[in-house]
Amino acid sequence: MTGTLYGVGLGPGAPDLMTLRAARLIEAAQVIAYPTLAGAESFARAIAADLIANDAREIVMDVPMSVERAPAQAAYDKGAAEIAAALDAGDDVVCLCEGDPFFYGSFMYLFARLSDRYRVEVVPGVTSITACAARAGMPLAARNERLTVLPGPLPEAELRARIDGAESVVIMKVGRHLAKIRSVIADLGLTASAVYVERATLPQEVVLPLADAPEKAPYFSMILLTKGADPWL
Amino acid sequence: MTGTLYGVGLGPGAPDLMTLRAARLIEAAQVIAYPTLAGAESFARAIAADLIANDAREIVMDVPMSVERAPAQAAYDKGAAEIAAALDAGDDVVCLCEGDPFFYGSFMYLFARLSDRYRVEVVPGVTSITACAARAGMPLAARNERLTVLPGPLPEAELRARIDGAESVVIMKVGRHLAKIRSVIADLGLTASAVYVERATLPQEVVLPLADAPEKAPYFSMILLTKGADPWL
Repeated sequence: MTGTLYGVGLGPGAPDLMTLRAARLIEAAQVIAYPTLAGAESFARAIAADLIANDAREIVMDVPMSVERAPAQAAYDKGAAEIAAALDAGDDVVCLCEGDPFFYGSFMYLFARLSDRYRVEVVPGVTSITACAARAGMPLAARNERLTVLPGPLPEAELRARIDGAESVVIMKVGRHLAKIRSVIADLGLTASAVYVERATLPQEVVLPLADAPEKAPYFSMILLTKGADPWL
Repeated sequence: MTGTLYGVGLGPGAPDLMTLRAARLIEAAQVIAYPTLAGAESFARAIAADLIANDAREIVMDVPMSVERAPAQAAYDKGAAEIAAALDAGDDVVCLCEGDPFFYGSFMYLFARLSDRYRVEVVPGVTSITACAARAGMPLAARNERLTVLPGPLPEAELRARIDGAESVVIMKVGRHLAKIRSVIADLGLTASAVYVERATLPQEVVLPLADAPEKAPYFSMILLTKGADPWL
């Protein structure tokens, strides 16, 4: 019997914000898989660490940092081949994904490589956007409001055009794009309604008005902009 | 000591898609609160049912169906007053919220009424958008892609304008707006890339190409439209 590949969302970082289903699958897993970036520690593995069995086999996909696509593609090709071998041998494989597997997650690259040949189950997780909103005390969207999710690396002109006229906006992957994003938001006169959140739900969490945000932001940071959800008072 | 109000996201419907933190809080709760709509059974309470203590006190906010705002506002005012009385008596109150409390949830109305006077903690949950994506096998957004969330009740012209030029689109609260949304998507030539999902993760779940969707949709239904996330093969 061929095994099943589980793409398991772990939530934003606090281990108890993973789902009951994710915890059960990880505890039972004999084979787990996860990516690391250029040899750094895996954030996903750190979230799940307390649940991983001592004798579980770990398939690590080390993804190099590179502007070219080929080296990262090769890392996912190699990881997919190792996972496929485990599935062929009858083992289930639990792939650990921070946040949600289908929301800006690298699990998509494994899904694209394996879902036509193997049974794949995706276990959704709490995304960083609602985790950040919870920690900032900022409702994201109510009733008939629209929500726009924008990646920070987008070009300045596109960010400006997408934020202008939007209702609630979430800007992901702020990192080294903070200065650019800040200037777009300032130009639009929206700084006062913007909040900066870094490493939401972790002990090192930072939540600040955008005006007070640090000069340097880590990759796992976000800006929330709401034009005032109607509280229906 | 005044109690704490917890706004607890329960996820999309399957009870094991709630977080470990949500489960722990519900099991320990002596007072729980939740809204019902016009006397109907509470979906949130049904998700949490197996974890609620037999002797827990339940504060039920019955929200009438009405096009006018005042009756619903009065229901939340009354619920907020009951919750405040419990908090003043030193009890914690766990408010049950399907999905995530700050993502199109009615908890926002309690948050607006109580967060200036009481300690409020929001526990994020898995939203219907990533749950539907998981069940449909459709990645929502990767790398620098944008994601647009639109409520189905928006006027036809606005829906058309917002979908046209968007990348990934999620249309929430489809319900009685299905025919209108379908015609907008057909006009834009996007029917082939649209998927209809109803009651995701529940036993009655339906996942179909939009072209095969039923004529009548329940409130808890969604349409996902992706213009093809790059799988990085």
